[in-house]
Order: sequence, then C-alpha cells, then structure tokens
Amino acid sequence: MLERKTKNFINIDPIQTGGRLTEEAKKALLEWGDGYSICDFCQGKLEEIKNPPIYNFINEELPKFLGCDVARVVHGAREAKFMVMHSLAKKDAWIVLDGNAHYTSYLAAERCKLNVAEVPNTGYPEFKIKAEKYAEVLDETTKKGEVVLAVLTYPDGNYGNLPDVKRIAKICKDYDVPLLVNAAYAVGRMPIKLKEINADFIVGSGHKSMASTGPIGVLGMKEEWAEIVLRKSKKYKNKEIELLGCSVRGVPLMTLIASFPHVKERVKKWDEEVKKARYFASKMEELEIKQLGDKPHNHDLMFFHAENLYEISKKAKKGRYFLYHELKRKKIHGIKPGLTRYFKLSTYGLSWNEVDYVANAFKEIVEKYQLN
Amino acid sequence: MLERKTKNFINIDPIQTGGRLTEEAKKALLEWGDGYSICDFCQGKLEEIKNPPIYNFINEELPKFLGCDVARVVHGAREAKFMVMHSLAKKDAWIVLDGNAHYTSYLAAERCKLNVAEVPNTGYPEFKIKAEKYAEVLDETTKKGEVVLAVLTYPDGNYGNLPDVKRIAKICKDYDVPLLVNAAYAVGRMPIKLKEINADFIVGSGHKSMASTGPIGVLGMKEEWAEIVLRKSKKYKNKEIELLGCSVRGVPLMTLIASFPHVKERVKKWDEEVKKARYFASKMEELEIKQLGDKPHNHDLMFFHAENLYEISKKAKKGRYFLYHELKRKKIHGIKPGLTRYFKLSTYGLSWNEVDYVANAFKEIVEKYQLN
Repeated sequence: MLERKTKNFINIDPIQTGGRLTEEAKKALLEWGDGYSICDFCQGKLEEIKNPPIYNFINEELPKFLGCDVARVVHGAREAKFMVMHSLAKKDAWIVLDGNAHYTSYLAAERCKLNVAEVPNTGYPEFKIKAEKYAEVLDETTKKGEVVLAVLTYPDGNYGNLPDVKRIAKICKDYDVPLLVNAAYAVGRMPIKLKEINADFIVGSGHKSMASTGPIGVLGMKEEWAEIVLRKSKKYKNKEIELLGCSVRGVPLMTLIASFPHVKERVKKWDEEVKKARYFASKMEELEIKQLGDKPHNHDLMFFHAENLYEISKKAKKGRYFLYHELKRKKIHGIKPGLTRYFKLSTYGLSWNEVDYVANAFKEIVEKYQLN
Repeated sequence: MLERKTKNFINIDPIQTGGRLTEEAKKALLEWGDGYSICDFCQGKLEEIKNPPIYNFINEELPKFLGCDVARVVHGAREAKFMVMHSLAKKDAWIVLDGNAHYTSYLAAERCKLNVAEVPNTGYPEFKIKAEKYAEVLDETTKKGEVVLAVLTYPDGNYGNLPDVKRIAKICKDYDVPLLVNAAYAVGRMPIKLKEINADFIVGSGHKSMASTGPIGVLGMKEEWAEIVLRKSKKYKNKEIELLGCSVRGVPLMTLIASFPHVKERVKKWDEEVKKARYFASKMEELEIKQLGDKPHNHDLMFFHAENLYEISKKAKKGRYFLYHELKRKKIHGIKPGLTRYFKLSTYGLSWNEVDYVANAFKEIVEKYQLN
C-alpha cells in the first residue's frame, strides 16, 4: 500500500490547499477510475460526450463560469499556456511575461522558441507588477519584433499579488497584443471572469484551485481565437490539433465535474478567505515575521520573510530543517523542508480554528527557540 | 452522484480492457486523489520525488520494463509522440507513418508542421504493414527531403496486427531514420523491450494497457536521444522543456505505480491471452463473422466483418442500433452503438467463461434474428 503520510495534517501548501477533493469528487474517483471509462459513449470528440455529462460541462457550465465564449479542459495550466503560445508563435517573434510568472510560462515560451521580454516587478518588499511597466516593455519589445502574446500571472505563485489586470488588458489592447491571464490561483478560489477583465485568454488549474485531482486545467478564450487555437486537422475534420484530438481522457475530468457545484459556491465566499489570510498575516507580523507582496493582502497565498527563524536555524540541532520538523510534530504540512528565512504558505479553506492553530504553532516555535 | 452505468458489464472495448484498475490502484486513487498530493516532498523535479517512490519507478523500474535507457511518464501515448516529433522537427522535414497509425500520430505530426508520408497496408482482408513497403516509402521520401522520424504502430488499434518490427527497425537504421514504436496496445499487455526491437523510442499507454487511470503514458528511449528530447531549459537548469517541467503531477501516476507489480506479472501470461483471442475468433467465424487482420491472430484486439449482422440491421426494429441493444441486454459493453458490419473488440483479461459468454451472446443474437 502506497500510503500518504501527510493526509491527516493541516495543509498549508499553496499548491495543495485549493486542490483538496470534495466528497463528490472522491466518489467520482472510484466510479470513473478505470482507464478510458469516460469514453464509454464517445462518438469521437471528448467535448461532445453526453454520458457522463462532459458536453454540458465544457460547452455550457465552464464558459459561463470563466466568463468566456469557448472553453476547453487541458492537462493543466502550463499545457494551456503552451497550446496558446504554440498556436500564435511565429519565427523570431516575442512574448511578454510578467516578472512574477510561473516558471512554466517561460518553459512554454522556450518550447515554442519564442523570445521572452520580462516586465520587472518592483522588487523587495512588495514585488508588484505595475501596469505602466507593461506599457514600457510592450513599447520596447514591439520595436524589436512582433509580439504575439502577453501573459499576466494573476495572482502570481510566489507572493499572491493581484496586479491591476483590467488596466494591463487595456494596455495590451492598445498595442494590439492578445493577453493571456494565468489565473491558476484565481479560477475556483475567487470570482474572476474573462469578459470583465477584457483579456483574450484565461487559464485555470483543476488540481491547484478547483478541488480536482491532477493533472487538469481549464482554458477559456474569446470566440475570435477559437479558430486559431482550436484549429482542426486537415485529415481528421473533427479533431483539434492542439489538443491532439482529446485532452483529459480520464478521471481528473470527472473529479472536476463532481466538485464543480461546490467550487461555484465557494468562490462567493472569497471575502472570508481574504479575511483569514490578513488575520494570519497580522499574527505572523506580531512575531516579527514579515509578510511580503501586496499589503494589505488580497489572496490566501502569502510569502513571508522570517529573519528570526533564519537566525534560529543557524543554531538549531536540525539546522535549516528545524522548522519543517517542528511543524511536522504539530501535524502541519506545506512549508518546504529546509526553508526558514523565506517561505510561502496558504490559508485557503482552513477553518478559523485551524488558522489560529497554525498561527499559534509559529508563535510556539519562535518562543521555544528564542528562550533557549 | 455521477454514476457509470456500464461498470458491472463485461467489457470488450479495446481501449478499456487493459486499463481496468487493480485493487491496489483503487486504493491509490483515494490515498492520492487530492490535487498535487504527490508533490508533498518534491524538490523541484517529478522524476526525483522519493516519497512516494516516483524516483525509483521512473529511473529504475520503468526503463527496465521497457528495455530502454531513459524513461519518462507523460500525459499519454499521443503526448509522447508529439514531444518526440516536436524535438526532432525541422522546417519542411518529413515523417513516415504506417498506414495503420492511430489518428493521433497524424495529429502530432500536423501539430509539428511535418510533412507526412504513409506506408500503405495491404488492404482487405489482412491490412498488413509490410517491412519492404517501409523501405520503399523511406527510399521515396528521403529523396523529397529530410525524414526526421519513422513511426510504427505495434499493434495498430484497428486490426491488432503485429508487423515485423525488428525488420522495420533494421530498415530504418539503414536509412539513418530514428524509429518510434507506438506500443500503446503492447506495453503492459505483452512482452516487449525497446532493446530487443532495436528501435529508438517506445511509447506505451497507462490507461490503455497498464491497469491505470488516465491520462498517462510512458516514453522510453535510447540514451543518445535523451539530450535532444529531454533537453533542459536555459533559464531553469533542472527543468525539461518538452515536459514543461513536470508531466503527470497527479493520481494517474500513483495508479500506474500501484498496478505495476501486477502488470509486470500479467505480461508473462500473454500466450493465454492470444489463445483466448484465437478461440473467440474461431467462434465468430463459425457464425460467418469474419475476423480481419493477421490470421491466426496474435493479439486480443480483433476486427470483425459481419455481413449477416449488417443484413439483420436493415430490418431490425432498432435498425443499426440493434446489436448494441442486444449486447447491452446481455450486459456486454464495448461495441460502439450503431456498428454492425465492421467492429472491433478485445478479449483481454476476460476469463474463459466470459469469453464463452460473449461468443454465445453473438450466437444467440444471430440465431434470434435469422429465425425471424
């Protein structure tokens, strides 16, 4: 038996807090676990399977949720970014990424042999991406060559910063550059609609933020892009080339569908999640552990700078692993083993009691070592 | 509750018979269902995660099983083909595919903008791919431009034909063209090793043939290709570009690992599976339903030509859906609704009793309608 040792822990790992399954999703796992079981009644196209109700999900529910014209499920946010970039890529062309972009945005661009221009963040301690910097970088880069796409990470996966996406979308429009919003930490956590942002593409992650098993992602776009990104094979007329026919042909899609009613409801409670995050950050600041990024913070993903924990790690018996072991003892999981000075965590989905428990755990750890 | 209506049926759908989960895999589903749970102790690279034992599986067990130097898990066989093609593609270059190739081989080539040359099969009734035809097509195509890859489907997904892969590999070597063997219906069902074939790449499918939930595939290669196909990012030194960093970051990988001890054992019983298939084909031939493709047949995936069922469908009350409904009544699933004249099925993993039950079902159906 391959056992998961951390399964009864309080989980504060940002990549995991939004991906915990609902009870409905757990049932779907067992019901649709067999390979290719979702293809029982397939007539040749994943998006058109009516039993189980994939057609309705991809063609009705998901576009409505994302506020877009056309949606697809894909293997993950990174694969969605790649398929858009790959569809738009041209020889010697450029892509503009925000300086807080996930590493996979770079990798996807590299895989497409695109030149990358970066919009720098404001540096320590806020690391903000400013709209006016997008304008500057677009201005410079369009002089160097064709810019086929801009990407904005909303929020980014390090600081949980939420840039002014509407203004950035407007700037991209002015430069006639389509904008992809990587909302892997937004879709399924907080309210967000492509049409309200007025960008061209929106990308979400099932395993990161939609209570789904991985790997699965969602891609929404405006109608005008569908014929390019979802272009069909010359030989197999109903098959979309970028999806290689069908994408998530398995159980992750069923967990996404099973959790979806819950996910639609939970985004309405986003204010409460922000409150919990801010409360937690204030408790950490009381311990002189500094919260970096947007302040006050607007997202459950938070980055901390703990000079005191770093100092402790220099003398602690377990060295830089002391924090990991202390938290493990308290059955808290999610801060990478070895980190003490800089680390991120997420309070998403924790009860207020759990938020207090985690905040207290840090307090106890700081006090324990500072007394020694 | 999203219920799967066919779950207690006898399943003869070729894409499903090899993907049914083991009990161990079902346990893994629940244990590792939460999104990104396998990343609990990740240090930055999927292939190096030691808890759960992914490192050992990808770096030791899988290459040994595939008989290759280097292996990776990917989202599926089609994604494996794409990443190899995408790594080798050049402007105006060619790829050679067998005429029985899965449609996704074409799509992957199309996605890479490769020109496609096809090795024709021998046509009705055997549809064989002959080694000498590979030589002919390679000869013609190398005159037109650079051939960056040849693909052989072994067996193909329509007829279950097993071409002379070793001879074809030898021919490709003579033309200095790397060969990818798409063994989505072989790896996990029958014994097969890349080094024995002496090809360059081998591709398998977890959800098709390795008792795994989908989507997941495996890719094995000779050492010399690793630096090309698994080339690393310039900016993120430990991340492989074609995998966009990490591929199957979720539960399908855990089901693959959980079922693996069983899969290693079951391939040793391949002779018995071939016996069952041949026995079933003989029973169908007694009903004047003709088995096409290799004869005697060497694989559980079989294609049938049933002129009599087609004649019945012209008069039956449910028309061309009569066969589907008759089989459904007998709790047999897997022949596409609407097919009567030509259809494929698989006897893989059925007990001898079930094989008899399915053969008898066809007999009863033929007799019932022929008496009317």
